[in-house]
Amino acid sequence: MSWQAVGIFDSGVGGLTVLRELSRVIPQEDTIYFGDTARVPYGTKSPETVTRYAHEITSFLIRRDIKLLVVACNTASAVALPSLKRHFPIPVVGVIEPGARRAVEVSRSGRIGVIGTAGTIRSSAYTRAIKRLNPQAEVLTRACPLFVPLAEEGWVDNQVARLTAQTYLQELKEAGIDTLVLGCTHYPLLKPVIAEVMGAGVTLVDSAAETALTVAGILRQKKMLRPASEKGNHHYYVSDIPAGFIRVGNRFLGGRLGDVYQVNLDEDGEEG
Amino acid sequence: MSWQAVGIFDSGVGGLTVLRELSRVIPQEDTIYFGDTARVPYGTKSPETVTRYAHEITSFLIRRDIKLLVVACNTASAVALPSLKRHFPIPVVGVIEPGARRAVEVSRSGRIGVIGTAGTIRSSAYTRAIKRLNPQAEVLTRACPLFVPLAEEGWVDNQVARLTAQTYLQELKEAGIDTLVLGCTHYPLLKPVIAEVMGAGVTLVDSAAETALTVAGILRQKKMLRPASEKGNHHYYVSDIPAGFIRVGNRFLGGRLGDVYQVNLDEDGEEG
Repeated sequence: MSWQAVGIFDSGVGGLTVLRELSRVIPQEDTIYFGDTARVPYGTKSPETVTRYAHEITSFLIRRDIKLLVVACNTASAVALPSLKRHFPIPVVGVIEPGARRAVEVSRSGRIGVIGTAGTIRSSAYTRAIKRLNPQAEVLTRACPLFVPLAEEGWVDNQVARLTAQTYLQELKEAGIDTLVLGCTHYPLLKPVIAEVMGAGVTLVDSAAETALTVAGILRQKKMLRPASEKGNHHYYVSDIPAGFIRVGNRFLGGRLGDVYQVNLDEDGEEG
Repeated sequence: MSWQAVGIFDSGVGGLTVLRELSRVIPQEDTIYFGDTARVPYGTKSPETVTRYAHEITSFLIRRDIKLLVVACNTASAVALPSLKRHFPIPVVGVIEPGARRAVEVSRSGRIGVIGTAGTIRSSAYTRAIKRLNPQAEVLTRACPLFVPLAEEGWVDNQVARLTAQTYLQELKEAGIDTLVLGCTHYPLLKPVIAEVMGAGVTLVDSAAETALTVAGILRQKKMLRPASEKGNHHYYVSDIPAGFIRVGNRFLGGRLGDVYQVNLDEDGEEG
């Protein structure tokens, strides 16, 4: 019986949607979240740089004794997952594979839409993951750069959000997709307005929720789940001043964000 | 007679609006632009960190033989200007003072609005600069976090931009300001829609344009201006992969961005 925590990291605050889903699905688990707010965004950085950051953060979390790592960041999931799995002796779960798998399961027509940041869409990571599971699938993608700042501003159900969603999603809607993957950890906050724009005929796949289900499945299978009677604790670390993370993070978690600690990964590495 | 260039730096692409104004006001001058795209944004980082970055970049530009430095970044202008002026033997111009000065000059009522990023507004840098020039001035501020991604997306005159501007600016409009400072280098791209929302009774002060006029004035006064018959060349450096900078930068400069070179400041420092 293990009492270790689940580690989660993201370049910033977005991965908190994965944490939120995790604490719904397996509320008994402790979590340790790391937001690399000093070096956000990852999407514009080279794969080598992002992989190096991912290794530093994973080392930090493993020193805090995690039993499983969630890479709750699309960019890091796309470039660093194989390397993390090779180097660290714990299960590593990304956010791309679970969403891709679910999309292939639920799509009847095989016409699947994917939305994400410019970096995620440019990387084609979801398209490749979907095509690996169903080579016949037709994947249509659209970058929606304004969705992240809208979510962080808390403008998730006003007219600006609605109009932005209409502008970004019009083409995907006209193309007749039957499934849309929310390929960015910020997007679950905009799910109601995206659902409204896409209409009832399109199934939304929430990568954050699917990732949480995958994590629960692995822990169950490996008999690493804590007893359901327990109540998990949640710890938060960031790499820069926590003020912005706290403000936006509380928006993501409905005000239930706990204490947030700032750490310097270089210094921590020397201690560890 | 000096043939050196004017150096300009920003955390990213925003400072290009200052470059655009400079090349209108003094088209004979060469410029060297540095966008710190590997470490953008500065607004969430500590003053010590931002000051260190500003020193690194200024050293880089001085090795390329600049005669004047424009800190075309509000965060760095707010925290690093005195230190840069002490350490480097060339004139250093920030973006806050020129905009504040112009606002105090044009406002009749003394009720001045300032809009900027969350970091700039939180720093109160414009409020302090304006109050230094006119202690009786009443300064009303509003952070407009969505304006930067709107400008970068090129959504500067559509319905989303209009509705966003209305939402952000409503209170300032109702408060009866007669002058509004665009306290972020991205905002000049949204000037038409901001002007439309604020109405004819409110004078917009464009920090980028005022900064360019200040630079021209200093060069003229110091007899460092190149002959007006010359045509300046413009060089661009960034600290991360240039693709995003080029795409958005061309939007800022109307397609006239030249070659962009990626440099590693650490390595460059060893050479220098």
